[in-house]
Amino acid sequence: MTAALLDSLRAIVGDAHVLTDGDLSAWEQDWRKRDRGRALAVVRPASTEQVAAVVKACAAAGVSIVPQGGNTGLVCGSTPDASGRQVVLSTKRMNAVRAIDPANLTITVEAGCILQSLQEIAEKDGFLFPLSLGAEGSCTIGGNLSTNAGGTQVVRYGNTRELCLGLEVVTAEGEVWSGLTGLRKDNTGYDLRDLFVGAEGTLGIITAATMKLYPMPAVQLTAWAAVPSMEHAVELLGLAHRTLGAGLTGFEVMGRFALSLVAKHFPQQRVPFVTAAAESADETPWCVLLENSDDESEEHARSRFEKLLEHAFEAGCVSDAVIAENLTQARALWHVRESITLAQVEEGLNIKHDISIPVSRIPEFVRVTDALLAEKIPGVRMVDFGHLGDGNLHYNVQAPAGGDAKAFLAAHEEEVNTLVFDSVKSFDGSISAEHGVGSLKQHKLPHYKSPVAMKLMRSIKGALDPQNVMNPGRVLEA
Amino acid sequence: MTAALLDSLRAIVGDAHVLTDGDLSAWEQDWRKRDRGRALAVVRPASTEQVAAVVKACAAAGVSIVPQGGNTGLVCGSTPDASGRQVVLSTKRMNAVRAIDPANLTITVEAGCILQSLQEIAEKDGFLFPLSLGAEGSCTIGGNLSTNAGGTQVVRYGNTRELCLGLEVVTAEGEVWSGLTGLRKDNTGYDLRDLFVGAEGTLGIITAATMKLYPMPAVQLTAWAAVPSMEHAVELLGLAHRTLGAGLTGFEVMGRFALSLVAKHFPQQRVPFVTAAAESADETPWCVLLENSDDESEEHARSRFEKLLEHAFEAGCVSDAVIAENLTQARALWHVRESITLAQVEEGLNIKHDISIPVSRIPEFVRVTDALLAEKIPGVRMVDFGHLGDGNLHYNVQAPAGGDAKAFLAAHEEEVNTLVFDSVKSFDGSISAEHGVGSLKQHKLPHYKSPVAMKLMRSIKGALDPQNVMNPGRVLEA
Repeated sequence: MTAALLDSLRAIVGDAHVLTDGDLSAWEQDWRKRDRGRALAVVRPASTEQVAAVVKACAAAGVSIVPQGGNTGLVCGSTPDASGRQVVLSTKRMNAVRAIDPANLTITVEAGCILQSLQEIAEKDGFLFPLSLGAEGSCTIGGNLSTNAGGTQVVRYGNTRELCLGLEVVTAEGEVWSGLTGLRKDNTGYDLRDLFVGAEGTLGIITAATMKLYPMPAVQLTAWAAVPSMEHAVELLGLAHRTLGAGLTGFEVMGRFALSLVAKHFPQQRVPFVTAAAESADETPWCVLLENSDDESEEHARSRFEKLLEHAFEAGCVSDAVIAENLTQARALWHVRESITLAQVEEGLNIKHDISIPVSRIPEFVRVTDALLAEKIPGVRMVDFGHLGDGNLHYNVQAPAGGDAKAFLAAHEEEVNTLVFDSVKSFDGSISAEHGVGSLKQHKLPHYKSPVAMKLMRSIKGALDPQNVMNPGRVLEA
Repeated sequence: MTAALLDSLRAIVGDAHVLTDGDLSAWEQDWRKRDRGRALAVVRPASTEQVAAVVKACAAAGVSIVPQGGNTGLVCGSTPDASGRQVVLSTKRMNAVRAIDPANLTITVEAGCILQSLQEIAEKDGFLFPLSLGAEGSCTIGGNLSTNAGGTQVVRYGNTRELCLGLEVVTAEGEVWSGLTGLRKDNTGYDLRDLFVGAEGTLGIITAATMKLYPMPAVQLTAWAAVPSMEHAVELLGLAHRTLGAGLTGFEVMGRFALSLVAKHFPQQRVPFVTAAAESADETPWCVLLENSDDESEEHARSRFEKLLEHAFEAGCVSDAVIAENLTQARALWHVRESITLAQVEEGLNIKHDISIPVSRIPEFVRVTDALLAEKIPGVRMVDFGHLGDGNLHYNVQAPAGGDAKAFLAAHEEEVNTLVFDSVKSFDGSISAEHGVGSLKQHKLPHYKSPVAMKLMRSIKGALDPQNVMNPGRVLEA
């Protein structure tokens, strides 16, 4: 049976693209190295027709499929389980740009196209493709769509979902839905596109997409502000919306301790307003990184930024600020923000969260949840940072200083997660803002999502994938 | 059986809100007066709990439900069929504003809230709710969501779908899904929200929604430009995107004949660059109305508009232009645009279309389809106008001058529709850009949408409404 399936798969994609031997860790091991599965085979189709044929062959053999893009996901959603009975379908060979339509402001690409390539192709033609995130050098647009990736530009351009106009999808039956329209308006029935976006490959396989492009802004300026409290950070966000309008393309918040870890572990980096000593009461408790994209000129952008910061000083919601003088300085500021994750790794094991809360309630959430954690698990250190413009915090918990972090995690990870998630729920938030569910949080969903929503989701899964062939056990429990 | 159901409904919503006698035309007659149905009853619940109880009672009695908001739809989607066996569920009593959250830039309202009220409530607090369309004085936000309404600001703010962050929905089983989050990021499973948005009440009833707000722009300026061809209009759109960026909040195109009808039937209106005589070769074949929203000042807005129009003159894509000097002039220009529909009524019967095409292909579509129509049905007059910024044309066909328009429609309406829709399909367009499907186009969909998409849609309908209680025969054939 298995041999017959492998023969069929080889006939479809060619012998060289059905991998069963040797080191398959690149496909079997998740990016955060939390989970190592075992695949029956890794199959690498080169076309939509091949994807459809692979799905049909697997479905006929009762073998389930795990679609995979760049394998940079954070929730174990695209690596196989331990059974050795799942086929990993890698989209990476399907990376053609099918069309650029400048007058329609769209680009149509195959699922395996690397996000950074897509950004560069757009830029070469004078356009911005605004999706931007840490893994952009290796993640694929198919993976971004399947997980509805967020990143640092959401405050202006939305998540991947909002950037997508059309999809081509291979259904769980192995049929091809050709929905690659470049239309901005189409009210002819149910929104199939947005159902496949964010479904993490559990309803079908996205093989290509038509994405929005934007005219490249004339200039992007970056500022860094010290703010006295999270309340002030939220107030600054409101001021920035009113002053910069659609020019506000980035608004990141970073806690003092998170920044102190960067200063401590990467002393070559200059972290404004925060030192490696950390927790000194003289230092600002929070910093904000702002990005202002302008269609006119650097002079114009700078004057608007200065106006914003003047207002903010007067209103008392900023205590100090710098505007990057040039691109090098701007990149250095973003680099500090992006180095928090690596600094955490240097500091030792930690428990990561990716939560969202209505922006207005974030200050209260942080205060209440910090206090709860401090009370229940003395000594934990909060590494708080994230996309405040979207209400999205990476509310991470570092083991107490000096202790055995591994033992701490073994003893407390579940307790910390439950405490944080319960608090998120009480603030009407989401336990997965941008990373998705995968197999890491699928057992959590029923506790934190309404039973009606869960029932609707199961109905949809049952209707579109009755055989449970597509990425079973992800998003919904198997 | 019927009497028992009516008793149950009266017990749920009160006697006064179950209407069975007297003139029910306000609920039974569609807005365009194409179709008059007959309802078993019109039920007017006051709360989500009442909606849920009504759905349960109807489902138990095997009686189907037609949800209705302002009854301003254009595709006979919210009026009952002729059977006298359907219950119309009007959401109009549910019109409370549940919450405004300024720091989160959101407002939560019930489904029956009139769009214009919502705009005014937002404005009173200094915010813009950007959805804007002809029926805004009587349509409801629930109806806007159920039909994913478009309107005149889509080029910047998107359709109703893009303005919605969360929903409360009564399912076909009469359960309440409470999804009223104000979150901008939430990747915990399938996108239920966008499935109910645009489903025209066939999957459940939207009872409340959390919508995005924007800071009110400092100023909105309007310009009117004569353009030598549709190709030039598309070129002007590209220039406007590059020059104004997110400031471009409106971009409407209008054909000479469409404008001449306004000049002819409403001589008190001043129509720039076009006279009632029409079709004079001296007059511009197309005009474009542009709106520029600015976060700074009128002076700044005007200088950017002037810069854009200078470039456009130099590039030859504008032959003449005016910028409104004040709000009165701006409103007068918009009034001309909005008067085209009424001018068409004055001129006589016509065949309306609401199509979308990738922006880049619109000039060719118009040329090819105009020629086809002129060849097959000599004498037809094209009333062409629409939201070019979104690729959405109201490509309407007026009966030949002087003849019997009624006889013309009886003889040619189906032929004209087929010709236009076939052409739309060959240009990868949509036969319903913003009005939806209703019972007017549901029989057309299978000819113009892919069989795979139709199958997916039927699977979803079957899964979420297996009894076919919710608005049967709309979107999908019964």
